[in-house]
Amino acid sequence: MKILVVGSVAYDTVETPEGRHESQLGGSASYFSIAASHFTEVGMVGVVGRDFQDQDLRMYEGHGIDISGLKIVDGKTFRWSGDYLQDINTAVTHETQLNVFADFEPSLTEHHAAAPFLFLANIEPSLQLRVLDAMSERPQLVACDTMNLWIDIARPQLSELISKVDILTINEGEARQFTDEQHLPTAASALLLSGPSTVVIKRGEYGAALFSENFNFAAPAYPLAKVVDPTGAGDSFAGGFMGYIAATGDTTEEGLRRGAIVGSTMASFAVEAFGLDRIRNLTPADIEERFKAFVELTRFEPISGNNGLPLR
Amino acid sequence: MKILVVGSVAYDTVETPEGRHESQLGGSASYFSIAASHFTEVGMVGVVGRDFQDQDLRMYEGHGIDISGLKIVDGKTFRWSGDYLQDINTAVTHETQLNVFADFEPSLTEHHAAAPFLFLANIEPSLQLRVLDAMSERPQLVACDTMNLWIDIARPQLSELISKVDILTINEGEARQFTDEQHLPTAASALLLSGPSTVVIKRGEYGAALFSENFNFAAPAYPLAKVVDPTGAGDSFAGGFMGYIAATGDTTEEGLRRGAIVGSTMASFAVEAFGLDRIRNLTPADIEERFKAFVELTRFEPISGNNGLPLR
Repeated sequence: MKILVVGSVAYDTVETPEGRHESQLGGSASYFSIAASHFTEVGMVGVVGRDFQDQDLRMYEGHGIDISGLKIVDGKTFRWSGDYLQDINTAVTHETQLNVFADFEPSLTEHHAAAPFLFLANIEPSLQLRVLDAMSERPQLVACDTMNLWIDIARPQLSELISKVDILTINEGEARQFTDEQHLPTAASALLLSGPSTVVIKRGEYGAALFSENFNFAAPAYPLAKVVDPTGAGDSFAGGFMGYIAATGDTTEEGLRRGAIVGSTMASFAVEAFGLDRIRNLTPADIEERFKAFVELTRFEPISGNNGLPLR
Repeated sequence: MKILVVGSVAYDTVETPEGRHESQLGGSASYFSIAASHFTEVGMVGVVGRDFQDQDLRMYEGHGIDISGLKIVDGKTFRWSGDYLQDINTAVTHETQLNVFADFEPSLTEHHAAAPFLFLANIEPSLQLRVLDAMSERPQLVACDTMNLWIDIARPQLSELISKVDILTINEGEARQFTDEQHLPTAASALLLSGPSTVVIKRGEYGAALFSENFNFAAPAYPLAKVVDPTGAGDSFAGGFMGYIAATGDTTEEGLRRGAIVGSTMASFAVEAFGLDRIRNLTPADIEERFKAFVELTRFEPISGNNGLPLR
């Protein structure tokens, strides 16, 4: 197993201008795993309740995902409901039921604890820290995500976590909130000083920006004719990004750049349908075609030799 | 003369978190001309009052700008004052004094009327239309800019103008307002149907997106450590974009792509200092270096031959 992910598995009720879906399979670990599974072997650590559907377990297995770390316990699966009716880029939460997640205590098998790549998806920072501590040795690459809630109520634990990861993925607004810097490059610099060697700022419909010690990289979002359901776009980005890096083992600058485009590719698919419907049905040809569309979206001829800019 | 620009010449009073500047030289035609002047010969059509400073005329001339179309008439120069204190990306207007601009009636010399490239900067659409009609023949390329005010109070004239140009540059919010489409690619499609073969959506700190009949292109903004004064960024983009295209004569897809990066280069300089202070003092080496930084900001290795994505 190349990547271990710990995060939420949920049943979401989502309403967007394109419709309403009740109790669709979701959660950060689900989006991440399915996106990453197109590239490499993923193991999932999480918890669900007795109401969890057998067909959903089979779907993970169908993608070669190791679900031996997905505990099934008495109680109901984590549930979230929200809408994107006012603004397709901003979720309005109606209800969050932690259910079995309230008492979640991740435990790792020996096999899981030896994974070379670790993604700590958005859950309580103290749980993320405990998973990192439970690894048998420091993984080759550790990335984490977070959310505004933890900045508000668990800042010390979040700061400790951020000091220990290689890559932090964070929304634009959360980066501003955490650093108290309004200007994004300044916020990214502050985050880089706090621990990670790379910060991925997620900007929704504007794509993602990588800030690293030695380089910056801008990955645009794909201009889709229609966004059906933005839920899980960030975790799908992370799944493509880490999936590519883990599959190739390329943690160099070149690997991170290309990984960010693979991440953007997976995020662009994620939002084209409700829930996991698009990313769980992708063919290799679909993914290669969209990746090539990103090449077309961003390419231009650089200056070379005498072929300089026509400056006066 | 390669490019004719018609637009405003103004004295702006601007306050940002970096300070307050009184009566600094500005206006859409000023930013456009100075940015374009690094690449090609520009002629400016506009009007100023008797209060206009001689040193400002000399500055244009120092950049090789043909100011024979800049009328000096009785009255005061157009003045705008505003601040970016709440949000560095959004101007709050305090006052707009049209002054001599209230009765501006552009007239073209034979030389101006024969320019092969025309930029109709943001002024009343009926004036933009009259300038276009006054050209001796249809220029090789006509681009225009506009603003929310004209969408509100002069929509029929603006629609007529847009139906007659090759390239429309427009802010993201204005594109949504004009088309009544919230989703940007859909708004861009609607604009393309209304006339232009290329629409440039300006997204401020997120860069610019080109939508064309046969391709889309995403140009990021440069991640600057500090934005001093965002005034004129859009017109500086247009100046770099059109300046590059006019200098090379390359109106192909490749020219538009590279032009958009040159435009982003000039916009990134414009916001680094108050008013025109940065873009009027650039060396060719400054411009080439920043252009190369855009190459670094966006480059990644595409898929080639057997070097495909590591798909399972």
